[in-house]
Amino acid sequence: MLEFQYYLPVNLVFGRGKSDTIGEKAATLGKRALLVTGGSSTKRSGLLHKIEALLRENGVSFCLFDKVTPNPLTTTIYEGAALAASEGCDVIIGVGGGSSIDAAKGIAFQTVNGGDINDFVFGRKFADQALPVIAIPTTCGTGSEGNGFAVMTNPETMDKKSLRCNAIVPVCSIIDPLLMTTMPKSTLACVGFDALCHSMEGYLSSLSQPLARIQALEGIRLCAQSLGKVYDDPSDLDSWEQMSFASTLGGMVINTAGVTAPHGMEHPVSGLKNIVHGRGLAALTPVIFAESISGAPEKFAVISKLLGGKDENDCVQKIKELLNKIDLATTLGEQGITQEDVDWMAENCLKVSAAGIYNHPVVFSLEEIKQIYRKAL
Amino acid sequence: MLEFQYYLPVNLVFGRGKSDTIGEKAATLGKRALLVTGGSSTKRSGLLHKIEALLRENGVSFCLFDKVTPNPLTTTIYEGAALAASEGCDVIIGVGGGSSIDAAKGIAFQTVNGGDINDFVFGRKFADQALPVIAIPTTCGTGSEGNGFAVMTNPETMDKKSLRCNAIVPVCSIIDPLLMTTMPKSTLACVGFDALCHSMEGYLSSLSQPLARIQALEGIRLCAQSLGKVYDDPSDLDSWEQMSFASTLGGMVINTAGVTAPHGMEHPVSGLKNIVHGRGLAALTPVIFAESISGAPEKFAVISKLLGGKDENDCVQKIKELLNKIDLATTLGEQGITQEDVDWMAENCLKVSAAGIYNHPVVFSLEEIKQIYRKAL
Repeated sequence: MLEFQYYLPVNLVFGRGKSDTIGEKAATLGKRALLVTGGSSTKRSGLLHKIEALLRENGVSFCLFDKVTPNPLTTTIYEGAALAASEGCDVIIGVGGGSSIDAAKGIAFQTVNGGDINDFVFGRKFADQALPVIAIPTTCGTGSEGNGFAVMTNPETMDKKSLRCNAIVPVCSIIDPLLMTTMPKSTLACVGFDALCHSMEGYLSSLSQPLARIQALEGIRLCAQSLGKVYDDPSDLDSWEQMSFASTLGGMVINTAGVTAPHGMEHPVSGLKNIVHGRGLAALTPVIFAESISGAPEKFAVISKLLGGKDENDCVQKIKELLNKIDLATTLGEQGITQEDVDWMAENCLKVSAAGIYNHPVVFSLEEIKQIYRKAL
Repeated sequence: MLEFQYYLPVNLVFGRGKSDTIGEKAATLGKRALLVTGGSSTKRSGLLHKIEALLRENGVSFCLFDKVTPNPLTTTIYEGAALAASEGCDVIIGVGGGSSIDAAKGIAFQTVNGGDINDFVFGRKFADQALPVIAIPTTCGTGSEGNGFAVMTNPETMDKKSLRCNAIVPVCSIIDPLLMTTMPKSTLACVGFDALCHSMEGYLSSLSQPLARIQALEGIRLCAQSLGKVYDDPSDLDSWEQMSFASTLGGMVINTAGVTAPHGMEHPVSGLKNIVHGRGLAALTPVIFAESISGAPEKFAVISKLLGGKDENDCVQKIKELLNKIDLATTLGEQGITQEDVDWMAENCLKVSAAGIYNHPVVFSLEEIKQIYRKAL
C-alpha cells in the first residue's frame, strides 16, 4: 500500500559559472548578508573574494564569519548567530563544503529562534522559522544544498546529530560544478563516497517512498558513472557535472527517506574523534552492508547492478572495488579509533541515530552494533 | 553541458483515505474556505458532503462555488473570485477533476491580483501572490495538484491557455486513490491518457532536465503498467495507487519541462469546440508522434520500451495499442472537428502554444501543423 508525504521546496540553480549570479540572488532576499565559510579554501581559491565583489555590486552589504571547522560545533553556531544578530543580517550565505553550509543553516535557525539548539536537534522543541539561506557548495558530497538538515556536534557531549527543519531548506542553492574542480583528490574521494551513501541509504531506508526512490537510483547511477572518472581526470567537466548533481540528489533523498545504519553508526565516530566523515563511512559501510543483505536482498541487488555488479551477493565487493579505485579503503583503526571507544560509540549511536538504525533493512541490537564497530576496527 | 533551474514546492499527502485529513489541513491555512467544484460528481459521490462536515468539525467555515465546467472559462474564474472576495475567503479548496482544481487555482490568483487574467496568462503582466490552494483530485490525469498551472479558456477568443505561476502551486495536495475508483471508464481512459501524455511530452521537451526526466520516466512506466489494469479491473487498488501517483508525477514534469506538440495542438481543438481534452490528445498524439520520431529517435525508443515496444519504430504502434485497449482510439472528425476548423486551429496553436511547439523534437511550421490536423481528422 502506497502512502507518503513529500515536501521539499528546494530552489536549485545548476550550471557552470552560475555562482556569478550570487549578487542578484542575494539582493532579492536581503540587504545585509552573513557570509559563512571555513578558514581557508574559499579564500585561497578566490571564490570568497569574487562573492564579496558581486554582493557589493548588487548593493548587498555583508560581514564575514569564517570560523567554521569540519564537523561544525554547536558553539560555533551560537557564535555565528550572535554575529548575525548584532550585525542585523537578514540573509545567511553558506559557501564551502558541507560544514560551511550546515553551519550557515544552523546560524539562520539559531538567529531567529535562540535558546539551546540541542533542544531542537533532539526534538524537545520545534520551530519553523529561520533567516533565508543561500547555499553555494564547493564540494560534491554533503548534499546540504538539497535539504533541511544541518549536522552539528555538541562539544560537551560529543553528540553529532542533525537539526531537521523545513525552514532551513536553502531558499536558493547555486550548484556550480566549476567550483568543485579544485578539490584535492582525497577530499573528492571522501565527499563523493558520502554522496553515494546518501542515495544508497535513502533507497534502503524503510522510509523510502517513490519520489525519494527515483532520486536515489539516479544518484547511485550518477556516482557509479562519474566518481571514478573525476578522480582519475579532474579535467572531465561532464563528469564533474554528474557528480555535482548526484550530490544534490543524495541530499534531497535523505530529507525524505532519512539515512540508515552507515550514517547512523558513523556520526558517533566523527563526533567522538573528529575524523573525516567520508573515511568513517568508508570503514563502516562494507562491514554494515555485509550484515544487511538478508534484510532486503532485492534492493541490494539493484544497488549492486548500478555499481556494475550482478546481484545482491557482489554488492559489498563492488563497493570495496570503488573504495579501492578512489584510494579510500580504510578501517576505523587507521582513523584512530580503538577497542576502548566501541562501547561509547555503540551507546551514543542509539542516542543520536535511533531513527537511522531503526530504518535500516536489518535493525541491529546494541550488541550487534558493537560487533560491527569491532569488525571495522 | 548540464544547466537547469528547479523550483516546485509541492506538498503531497498521498494515500488511501487521506482525504479525511482535509479539515485539519484547511484549519492550518485559513478560517473561511471557498470550496470549488463542478456541478455533480462530487455531490453524487458524497465527497463534497464529507468535506463540508470535516471543515465544520475543524472550525473552518466555507461557501460553495459549484459552477465549474469542463474546460473552465475565464469568466467562471471571475465569478468565483468575486464570491471569494465578497465572502472574505482566505483559502481555496479545489475538489474534483482537473477543471475544478485549475479553476480553484485561477480563483486563488484572481482574488488577490484582480484585473484582466488574460494579461497574466499571456505574460503581459506578472504577479506572484495568490490565496493558498488545497487540491483534492478525484481524477488521475491533469496532475494539476502537482504544479503551478491553471488551464482556462477565454470564451471571447476561444484561447485555451495556462496561467503559470509558482504562487498557485497548491500548498497542500491530498491525493487519495480511493476517490478515483468511482470514475466512469470513459473518463478514466481520457484522464489516464492525458497523464501519460504529460510525462511523454515533458520527457521529449527540449526544456527537459534531470529532475523532470526521472519523474517523467517513472510516470510513463507507471501509466504503462497500471492504466490498462484499472481500466479492466476497477477493484485493483494497487494499480489505482500507481495511476494516481503517475498523474501527479505528470503534473510535476510539465511544470519544469513544459508540454510539447500534442498538448500544444490539442488546446486549440478543445478551446474551439469544447471537446474532451483526452479525446483530442488521443486523436492527435499518434499522428504527431509519427512525424516526430526523427527529431529524437533515442527518446522515442526509451518511451516505446516503457510501453512494451522494441525501439523508436514501434512507439506509435504501442500508443495505438494502448488507446485501443482503453477504447479511446478516435479522430478529430469523430469529435466534431471539420476541415473548416483547421486554419483557425493552426493559427491559434501558434498563438496559445508557441512554447510547446518550439520545445517539440521537431518544430513544425504553420503548414505542417495544418497537415497534421488534417491527417487527424
